[in-house]
Amino acid sequence: MTDYLDTHKQRFLDELLELLRIPSVSADSAFKDDVRRAAEYVKEKLLAAGLDKAELYETAGHPVVYGEKIVDPAKPTVLVYGHYDVQPADPYDLWQTPPFEPTIRNERIYARGACDDKGQFYMHIKAIEAMVATDGLPCNVKVMIEGEEEVGSDHLGTFVAQNRDMLKADVILISDTSIISNETPSLETGLRGLSYVEVEVTGPNRDLHSGVYGGGVANPINVLCDMIASLKDENGQIAIPGFYDKVVDLSDADRAELAKAPFDLDEYKRDLGIAEVAGEVGYSTNERTSIRPTLDVNGIWGGYIGQGAKTVLPSKASAKISMRLVPDQNPDEITELFARHFTAIAPPTVTVKVTPHHGGLPYVTPTDSVEFEAASRAFEQAWGKKPIPTRGGGSIPIVALFERELGIKSILMGFGLDSDALHSPNESYGLFNFYKGIETIPYFYKNYAALKQ
Amino acid sequence: MTDYLDTHKQRFLDELLELLRIPSVSADSAFKDDVRRAAEYVKEKLLAAGLDKAELYETAGHPVVYGEKIVDPAKPTVLVYGHYDVQPADPYDLWQTPPFEPTIRNERIYARGACDDKGQFYMHIKAIEAMVATDGLPCNVKVMIEGEEEVGSDHLGTFVAQNRDMLKADVILISDTSIISNETPSLETGLRGLSYVEVEVTGPNRDLHSGVYGGGVANPINVLCDMIASLKDENGQIAIPGFYDKVVDLSDADRAELAKAPFDLDEYKRDLGIAEVAGEVGYSTNERTSIRPTLDVNGIWGGYIGQGAKTVLPSKASAKISMRLVPDQNPDEITELFARHFTAIAPPTVTVKVTPHHGGLPYVTPTDSVEFEAASRAFEQAWGKKPIPTRGGGSIPIVALFERELGIKSILMGFGLDSDALHSPNESYGLFNFYKGIETIPYFYKNYAALKQ
Repeated sequence: MTDYLDTHKQRFLDELLELLRIPSVSADSAFKDDVRRAAEYVKEKLLAAGLDKAELYETAGHPVVYGEKIVDPAKPTVLVYGHYDVQPADPYDLWQTPPFEPTIRNERIYARGACDDKGQFYMHIKAIEAMVATDGLPCNVKVMIEGEEEVGSDHLGTFVAQNRDMLKADVILISDTSIISNETPSLETGLRGLSYVEVEVTGPNRDLHSGVYGGGVANPINVLCDMIASLKDENGQIAIPGFYDKVVDLSDADRAELAKAPFDLDEYKRDLGIAEVAGEVGYSTNERTSIRPTLDVNGIWGGYIGQGAKTVLPSKASAKISMRLVPDQNPDEITELFARHFTAIAPPTVTVKVTPHHGGLPYVTPTDSVEFEAASRAFEQAWGKKPIPTRGGGSIPIVALFERELGIKSILMGFGLDSDALHSPNESYGLFNFYKGIETIPYFYKNYAALKQ
Repeated sequence: MTDYLDTHKQRFLDELLELLRIPSVSADSAFKDDVRRAAEYVKEKLLAAGLDKAELYETAGHPVVYGEKIVDPAKPTVLVYGHYDVQPADPYDLWQTPPFEPTIRNERIYARGACDDKGQFYMHIKAIEAMVATDGLPCNVKVMIEGEEEVGSDHLGTFVAQNRDMLKADVILISDTSIISNETPSLETGLRGLSYVEVEVTGPNRDLHSGVYGGGVANPINVLCDMIASLKDENGQIAIPGFYDKVVDLSDADRAELAKAPFDLDEYKRDLGIAEVAGEVGYSTNERTSIRPTLDVNGIWGGYIGQGAKTVLPSKASAKISMRLVPDQNPDEITELFARHFTAIAPPTVTVKVTPHHGGLPYVTPTDSVEFEAASRAFEQAWGKKPIPTRGGGSIPIVALFERELGIKSILMGFGLDSDALHSPNESYGLFNFYKGIETIPYFYKNYAALKQ
């Protein structure tokens, strides 16, 4: 195994770079064909890795790539999930090297999708190739790589529901999260859910001259700012009635457990270039970003945003707002609560439109399961260290969907780092993490096959 | 005179349409050459109108067009001011017909600059042509048309200071304001000043993943909204310390006089498509838009504003904010007060940058002067009605500058309507107003020459 990985190191990397050159941005229809090209590429590589079959499954949106290799129906089956679509790369001008021209600098791969999630799911394809080519697969494997994760996996639910039998498995293995550091491996035991909405505030029926009308007519930008500002109170709590009703507070024991994860606040601030952190009063930074819900404006626009000065009192102002959710908040309920509240607080001088974008349920995985044990040991074997259980702040809505539709738990065996700049300019993924991941995954299969006997 | 105006009606209009086809947007350097083309066109037309001379005067920005005709040094001299530059036309998609392809619909000229200010200053050139071609000019005339009014007339101050003798005159005549309605002519006796700033709020040194960092790091968009929201109190008053210190409150008598101007609130709301007006408590809509200062966000942007959803916690958020000022507020002082306050209220989690764009002093003109009388009578003669004195909400910073540099008062003899959609998509100017203006202006010269004897 080790020899095989060493021998083919360079090819594994070249193949990933090839995939990274395809701008598979699912959010922007301008990239529709590239998204499909990425799917085709993944399919080829699944077959090349030795799977019995691999196909593109059409959906109402971007296709799902599915492949499998059944070595022995009696053996346990691992379902690998990942996504070949990527976040939009703008603002392009902030990239040191073009987002879709992957570049290796100081032992890191710089490209949109390098870590999220191309670099991470591709490790699985290479690990499978290595197992097939050497000792053989100790478990059956099914691989499902979708193309709409960055836009809410809108059509995966239908796909999963329609292919329950095909997707039947004992565990779902996902690498789309991060570890604490390369010195401190960790395994995520939970994820936050998501509610994402777009709001539009309309004042006058046309843009107005701010001199002629200014002072006498409500300005939708000012109004939008007032409304957004009112969504949080002075303690950093979200002021939407009912928002916290279903939030499960962690026990002091659990909070103490989480607090064990090494964290250096000064280093954190230095890395982000900020003088102070901010957040909900009464919680640590790690808690604010994992076990507590949030509300962030992801985008705002209105009026004249070009060069120079334009004295306009605009007709409209808009914002994209997302809320990260924790157990047991329900995205549909939260979206509904938000919409009702946001409409209720709108002054009579404007009209408000709230459009839900997408959402996802929060998720928690048990740490006392055979699956978690197999993953934990795999890290010990490959990294020489027991991974620390952590709660992640991000969202992989699909994880909760899998549990509901297929009744299968997921193992979040991610190898990225928070500093990989996911969703940001200059996203990167460490070569160390890429290769270490490929080395760790086969151990999981071995451990899992053994533990299930 | 009347015959001459009738005979050349169509040509006057065609010449204006030709001028309107030149996209002389001063705020955007992409239109630099078009701005110059507009200046050249104005110069030609000044010469064609019969002026002794007309030239382009270079400045550090866009050129100033100046021309004059001295009929008799003993006669009073009228200095006409206008601007050939226009506001940016975006959002283009909201225009029924392209902004720079003037179209006549229901007796109105639709084009960017149709009213502000090409349509209005061009009336003067045609009125001068008519006087020269018929009874001759009763006064000397000097014409100064600049190309930077929409960006704060940054270089006109220097030009005026350097050409005091050349610009020597007895009165400045400006058509860049509006009348109450075509049934109710009016003369503006005051203008608001302006302070225009751009603010930038920076949080983390890069865009972040809102899942990984959300809740633990201050979001610059949320912070910007908080800061903007805090700039006004619950009474609609601007909460910047010292902002109102120099505001001159009108006497009840003056307020009563202003209240005489016909105003239909329901019609006003219907025209704008709003259910309610808004503004400073204790003042009427007319007062809020004329004798009271304002603060409006003219533009705001930050984060992801493209198609679909991007879960980003952005590094920066920005806004363009303008404040309309009234006597005796000083734009430099107000800009300074704003900058100091905005920086002071910034939380330690972000850094703030405030960049002043441009400003202008408020202005009030006496109604008991020979100049005002000459203008008032001109309306009576051409419209058969005495014009109502009103206070305008817009700003023509240059007016205050003229008084300071040249010691000359300005007469604001505008012919536009508030409904002309200045600075908005589908800006228009009524053919009636264009022709009526050309008819009214010569009366002013006659009256003024007579009254000055």
